[in-house]
Order: sequence, then C-alpha cells, then structure tokens
Amino acid sequence: MRSKGVTPLLDHEGATLLRDEPSYSRETIRDESEVVLVLGGDGTLLSAARLLAGTQIPILGVNLGNLGFLTEVQSTEVLDVLSRTLQGDYSIEDRIMLQVRIFRNRIEQSQTHVLNDIVINNGSIARLIESDIYMNAQFVTSLKGDGVIFSSPTGSTAYSLSAGGPILYPGMDGIIITPICPHTLTHRPIVIPGAATLEILIKKGDSSVTATLDGQVGHSLKVGDMIEITRSPHITRLIVNSERNYFEVLRDKLKWGDT
Amino acid sequence: MRSKGVTPLLDHEGATLLRDEPSYSRETIRDESEVVLVLGGDGTLLSAARLLAGTQIPILGVNLGNLGFLTEVQSTEVLDVLSRTLQGDYSIEDRIMLQVRIFRNRIEQSQTHVLNDIVINNGSIARLIESDIYMNAQFVTSLKGDGVIFSSPTGSTAYSLSAGGPILYPGMDGIIITPICPHTLTHRPIVIPGAATLEILIKKGDSSVTATLDGQVGHSLKVGDMIEITRSPHITRLIVNSERNYFEVLRDKLKWGDT
Amino acid sequence: MRSKGVTPLLDHEGATLLRDEPSYSRETIRDESEVVLVLGGDGTLLSAARLLAGTQIPILGVNLGNLGFLTEVQSTEVLDVLSRTLQGDYSIEDRIMLQVRIFRNRIEQSQTHVLNDIVINNGSIARLIESDIYMNAQFVTSLKGDGVIFSSPTGSTAYSLSAGGPILYPGMDGIIITPICPHTLTHRPIVIPGAATLEILIKKGDSSVTATLDGQVGHSLKVGDMIEITRSPHITRLIVNSERNYFEVLRDKLKWGDT
Amino acid sequence: MRSKGVTPLLDHEGATLLRDEPSYSRETIRDESEVVLVLGGDGTLLSAARLLAGTQIPILGVNLGNLGFLTEVQSTEVLDVLSRTLQGDYSIEDRIMLQVRIFRNRIEQSQTHVLNDIVINNGSIARLIESDIYMNAQFVTSLKGDGVIFSSPTGSTAYSLSAGGPILYPGMDGIIITPICPHTLTHRPIVIPGAATLEILIKKGDSSVTATLDGQVGHSLKVGDMIEITRSPHITRLIVNSERNYFEVLRDKLKWGDT
Repeated sequence: MRSKGVTPLLDHEGATLLRDEPSYSRETIRDESEVVLVLGGDGTLLSAARLLAGTQIPILGVNLGNLGFLTEVQSTEVLDVLSRTLQGDYSIEDRIMLQVRIFRNRIEQSQTHVLNDIVINNGSIARLIESDIYMNAQFVTSLKGDGVIFSSPTGSTAYSLSAGGPILYPGMDGIIITPICPHTLTHRPIVIPGAATLEILIKKGDSSVTATLDGQVGHSLKVGDMIEITRSPHITRLIVNSERNYFEVLRDKLKWGDT
Repeated sequence: MRSKGVTPLLDHEGATLLRDEPSYSRETIRDESEVVLVLGGDGTLLSAARLLAGTQIPILGVNLGNLGFLTEVQSTEVLDVLSRTLQGDYSIEDRIMLQVRIFRNRIEQSQTHVLNDIVINNGSIARLIESDIYMNAQFVTSLKGDGVIFSSPTGSTAYSLSAGGPILYPGMDGIIITPICPHTLTHRPIVIPGAATLEILIKKGDSSVTATLDGQVGHSLKVGDMIEITRSPHITRLIVNSERNYFEVLRDKLKWGDT
Repeated sequence: MRSKGVTPLLDHEGATLLRDEPSYSRETIRDESEVVLVLGGDGTLLSAARLLAGTQIPILGVNLGNLGFLTEVQSTEVLDVLSRTLQGDYSIEDRIMLQVRIFRNRIEQSQTHVLNDIVINNGSIARLIESDIYMNAQFVTSLKGDGVIFSSPTGSTAYSLSAGGPILYPGMDGIIITPICPHTLTHRPIVIPGAATLEILIKKGDSSVTATLDGQVGHSLKVGDMIEITRSPHITRLIVNSERNYFEVLRDKLKWGDT
Repeated sequence: MRSKGVTPLLDHEGATLLRDEPSYSRETIRDESEVVLVLGGDGTLLSAARLLAGTQIPILGVNLGNLGFLTEVQSTEVLDVLSRTLQGDYSIEDRIMLQVRIFRNRIEQSQTHVLNDIVINNGSIARLIESDIYMNAQFVTSLKGDGVIFSSPTGSTAYSLSAGGPILYPGMDGIIITPICPHTLTHRPIVIPGAATLEILIKKGDSSVTATLDGQVGHSLKVGDMIEITRSPHITRLIVNSERNYFEVLRDKLKWGDT
C-alpha cells in the first residue's frame, strides 16, 4: 500500500498479526481513514459498521474464512480489489441501518446504530418474554414467546431468516419484525416501511431479558423498559465487487434453491 | 343519493338487485363515474380494481359478508361513510398494482394490471412446474414445485400468506416472490424492490400450467412462455375508514397474534 | 440371470428395451414372480408397490437417474445386489401402506392401496376446497385452502415435506395430515396413529376437486363425497442395501442439514 | 373427601392455602398416595409427573387458570370428577415419558424422566450451539443454530410446536427432534420411533449451554458432554375426562383451525 502512497492504520489485532507495525485505536481509525478494510467474517464487519455509523467512510470486507454476505471479497482477490479501490475504481452499495434507543422510566439509557438486527429475548431457562409492539403509536400486537427480531434488509439473511423471516433485497427500505418461536400460531413475520417508528414495551420476563445488537452487544432489560427502533439517519457504505450478484451469494451461502 | 344530487350508475348485478333501475356496462361505469362503490367481498373489489386501473377513480369497498381486507367498511356503516364520501370528507390510500405481460415466442399475448397477485401453477395431478426467475436480467433462481406467487403488499395477506410469505405493510414498495410447496427445502420467500423487472421462464410443465391473476383470471401457459412482472404504472385508490387501523384488520381477519 | 437358473419376466417396457425378449402383463408378473426388480425412479417403484399390494413379493428398486428414496440401489451396483438377492442374501424393510376408499352416496366407488400419499386438492384456478376431517368418528378440524395431504412415513419425504410436514422415520406407524396452503394460520401438520380411521368429507369445491394417489392416479370428487383413509392391511417389502443408512439418503437427496 | 373415607395428603403449598391442615413432603405424598390431584397449570403437572415417574399413581390435573393440555378438568368440575374418581369411575391415558441421561467424560452425571421435552440451547447472547446427533449409533446430522428440542407426543403441543414441530397424537410412540432456528435452511423436524436411542454430542458453545427438562430444570453443559435420550421405562398416567376429545383441546388452546 505504501508504494501507492497510502498509509494503512492498523488496529490492535492487525498490528499484532503483522508485527513491527504501530497500532491505532478504533476511534483514531474512524477519524483518520478514507477507506476501512475489514479482514474477517460478517461479524467483524458488523462491528466496523457500528463504529463507522455517522461517517461516510466506505468499508471493504475481505473474507478470510467462510463466504460472507457482507465480506464479499475473497482473500485471494484482496490485492486486486484493493488496488482498484485505491484508484477510486469501485462501486458502493448504501445499506440502511437501524437506530435503537432504550428507555427506562422514560429516560434514554443508550442509543446505537446497527446494520443487521436487534433481538429481544430471554437467556434464562424460562425463556418466556411478553412484549407489546407499537408502530407510529398504533398498537400492532402482543407477542408471547422466545422473543422478537427487528431486522434491516441486510440482516434479513442472518438470524431473522433462521427464525422464519423473509429475505429482503438489499435495496429495500423496510424493517422486518420476526417473532421467535411465538406461543400463538397465527404470528407471521411482517415488513413495515423504513420510515415507521417502532416501540416495544417489555411486559413480562425475568432478569435475563436482553436486547442484543447485531448479535454482539447485549443490553439488559427490565419489565417496563421501552425500546424504540427506527431507520437510522446513518448508513453503511459497502464497497462491492461489481461482478458478483446478490442471488449468487444467496445460492452460495444458503444453498438457496439448491437441488 | 339522488337527494344529494348524485346519480348512481348500477352494473347489471346491482340493477337486478334493486329492480326498476337501469343498468350500465362496466366500461360505462368506468368512464362516467367519480367514485365507485363496491358491494361484496375482497374478490369483487379485486375485479373492480383491474377495471379501474389507469383511472384515478377511488373505490369504496363495502363488506356484505365476512370482514375483508379491502372492503373495510361494514354494510351498516355504508350510508354514513357514503355521505361523508360524497361531501369529499374521506381519506384515500394508494396501493401499488402489478403489471403482468405474457410473451409467447417473444410476442406479447396479454397485459393486465392486478392488485393482489399473479400465481403460476399447474392444475393437473402432476402439479410439477419448473421455472427460471430473473430480476433485472440477473438470474435469481430455478424453482421446482407447485409453482410461485408474485404478490403486491396488498396481496401479502391473501394467497402468499397461506404459502408462507411475509405480511407487507400496505405502504411498502415491494414485490414478494413466494414459492408454493417447493421441492428444494432451501427456498424462502424474498421481497424485491418495486422498481425491479421480473421475468419468469416456463421450463417444464404440462398443458395445465396457468398464470392466474388475482385468483380470478387464468391464462394458459406453455413451456417456453415468458411472463414479465413489474410494478404497474397504475395504482388502486381505496377510500379508507380513517378510524380503523391495519393491525386491527390483521387481528380480526387472521386472528393475528390471538391467544 | 438365466445362468443362475432364474427366469426373468419382463414387462412391456423392459422387453422393448432389451429386444428379442417376450413381454408379460403386469398381472402375470405379479402372479408369477418371487422378486420384482424396478428400474427407474421413485415414481416407477410407487406404481409397482400398488400393483404388488396384497402379495409378499419384495421389490428391489434400481435407480437409473437421480438418487431416489425408494430406489436406493445405484445402477452400477445392480448386478452385485441382484446376485446377492438371488442367493437370498438380502435384508427387507417392511413399509406400511395406506388404504383409501372413496364413497359417493355411501356407496364405495374405489379402493386403492398406496405407498406414499393421498392428496385432495383442486386443480381449477379457484383452487379453494373445504373439507371436514374426522378421526375414529371424532371431529378433527375443518380445512379451507388448497387441500390436504395424507402421507405414510414413506411419503413423508415427498409432497408432504414440501408442504411443511415433518419427516417420519420409515419404521414409524403413523399417518401425517398436512394441510396445503391453509387459509387459517393456526393449522399445523399432525401425526396420528396408524390404527386410526380417517374420514374426509368434501364440503365445498368445484368440479376439479380430485383425490390423487401417489401423485399418479386421480379420482374426480364431488361435494358430499367421503374418503376413508386407514393403514392398509398390505405392506410394501423393499429390498434394502444394508450398508446405506436412512439419514445418508436424507442428506444426499434433501441436502438435509447441509452447510 | 374425608366424608368418603379418603385421607388427603397436602403438600406445603396446598396446606398453606387451606390453613389448619398438616403438610407432607413431596416424597411422602409419592410414597403414600393412590391418586394425586394437581391444582394449577400444565407446569405444575409436569413437575408432578417427574416426581411420580416410576410409580403407577394416576394424576388428576385440575385447571385453575387458563385451559391446559394436561390439566383438562376445569376447577368447576373438580368435585364431580373427584367423586367419580374416588369411586373408581374414571379412565386413564398412559403417556410415554422420555429418559435423559447426561454424561461428562463418559461418566453419568444425572438421569431424569420428563413428560414433555428436553431442550438443548444457549442462554448467552452468542446463542450459537453446535451438536452432532446420533440415532442407534448412526450419525443423523450436525445441527448449528439456537439449539434443538426432543419432545414426546405429549410435549408436541408445547415448545416444539412454537419452533415448527408437528403435533403428535397422544397415543403415538415416537420422539420428535425439532431444531430451533437452525442456520441451515434444509433442516426439518423429524419423528423417530420411541424405541430408538438418541445421543447428542455438544461440539461448540460457550459456558451458557444448558439442557432444560420440561422447561423447568436446567443442567449446565460443556463442550464434549453427551446427552442420551430414550423413551423412559416409566409412564405418566393421566386421569382423563372421557367426554372431551383431544381435538377440542387443540381448537380451544391453539385456536387450531380457527377461522
């Protein structure tokens, strides 16, 4: 990279790997970079997306192991794609993010921006959680069961899919509500417009009720807590390999339609 | 109505019902009306929506029997809502329609605009149908099974839901592709942007392969036929009772979330 | 075969294939054979199973194309397995069959024994069929939708699986009732004991309502017809390759659990 | 009761409720009773069933709140049914139980007999658990996802149903394996014969992996642990109201087939 006049800033893990290289904090990387290269799986990229929310910095995800939905460049292609990226020869796909705010006694406890999903569930053996869901202040439904997933189109191929949710093409502007093992047989996944404001009120559950963000960050919840979910004002900008198409990834990753 | 200076034009069935009233062709009604009142179930309204595609005439659906998703005014409310409608005191919900064009040997055989869905299946006991699906000329998947449903958000609570598809909030701009009893276990419903162009190529199937529009009109298909599906340039304009909400209808009709 | 003192009786298709060989009617083959060799796919074997219902003749299914659930010997293995079979060195798996009797005005119209399944559906574009189901004269449920599948454990990996039914291990003694695209969201597949007597009463549907046996034989039904389904007194005896296991076939055929 | 020469033994909760009554340990009740009356929901009955495993004591479940699958006598009917029970005028339904044994380093850690189900999952936010399943020492499948449920027919209307499992009529002799939110789209619930021996090997998961018995008792698991599941030599004997039928309960509780 340096031969092309590019200065790489490595995070702690990257620096450890390459030795003899200085490492930078994630915040410095966020504030000083023009492009962020993520080496790893989809999980690593989700974490980078949360870090970069609010910036316009594009992310190039490089897959080191299994094929990823987000890290769509293979490690063997990395030098080639990187070289093209540094020359400005790349296309970018904007993905909506979800903003999640947690309120206790009407006081905001936290605000996060996630690329994939927010999962509200209960880790104890009782598992049961009851919640009421509202959309734009209209009552949607009461949910009783293992929990509920709120997923962006990007997250539609992750946990939501395992729980029976539909696949949403990346370009869509919608939020999927997917119940997890609901007690009532009539619940079905529903897709609502990206512009909607969702509110979830925790009605029953023990001390293990948790909101999990992108499968990585957990927030402990209590009965009476309210979680507000909206499309985030921020987006994630992914550098994409223009030669691959989304359905190919579906087929590769999910054996979608495999016979 | 006449006391309010409104002239009703009745179709054949309506005139038969009221006796002593002249009847008008559906085309005359389309060309001369300002508002169309549909008395019946969702099926009647679907048929009116196809007739009125291309006009801006709003439809007021009045439910005569079971609760409907589209005919959301109860017969007991009709005089009240009609009176308000005639005074211009009503709100309108625009629903996207789907345009379906059927090609044989690259020659267009028909073009229709539907409000709910297009179903491609096979009525014979063999049932099997194989098709290839493309989106914006990109290969999506091969489908082998009982067939496939292409549904608008409005149609998402109809046949697509029975086949495992998600519910789409009416305001969404998307098309649902829901496989019907697919042979491969990996197929899942997918939602694609309303702006996409879908093409379905019939690859295998016997003489009973059919494209069914809104569950009402059938087009016989042959191997080699191509069906193009896009969001229609036309919309259906529904007069809605502003006091009811969509989720109430879901709960009433589908026992959605009922415990 | 003849070198081993075995006389093969070929049916019309087999004789045509091998030329210069006499052909025998299916009935003669049934009455004169000790072992029946089926060359083809699962469909061919289903047809042989219906023919041989009531006899104790074991079937050796040889797969000529795609892997089959029933024709589990590959064509390359056929001579070896046949040789072992002729020496009596083979294991047999007994599979339960379903007996289906169709009644009109309380008069029996037909009686058949099937290995896989009985499907009651409607081939017309209206698709809708309504039926009432009884088990041992107890009312089970009303079904409204595309129809219903009654499947043996052997049939559980065929159409029933596509419609959302569970897999039943071959040794089980049960009948699966799987609704096809039901209108009501609460319907789920149910497995009932093999000893039960099921009765299905056709309540609504047009002239295209049909009972399809093993996906191959269709019986036209009318409103008011009653279909009785029980475990058959007959079984199908399959010669099995003792080295393969059922879960391997599931993985091979269905990509079951494939990652 | 005493007027009929019957001596009731109350447990701690029952005695507290009725005051002035002596209370007995659960073990004494098990050793001294001829019939056990359970007042409460299905959960209370599950706990009684585990206590009584190995005895022939029948259980009469009386529902105090919501309708139950197991506590099928309403509190208003209790005196009448009890009186008939004490006269020996009752019918009994035998339900199979599952035996679960947990092994660490090949040493048995625990053995329990459950009426409903064994759930293996992971309560942490990572959720992921990987296991290998064997039946009669044959490899069945690798499972990656939120976990897996092993359910008796009695448990088929509990958690397994929420996770997509089939309903098994109470008389069946089978064990349902239902994956919970599996990563691979091809996994389906499978029903295996009651006589089978299942072994589950924990391959990946963190310190929160747990085996939960009847939703009530948790056993902490580690990578390398092996769980053996078989039909138990014990059964649960339920006193049933001979006037109700199973499908009525399904309709009442699950709105099964409700329109």
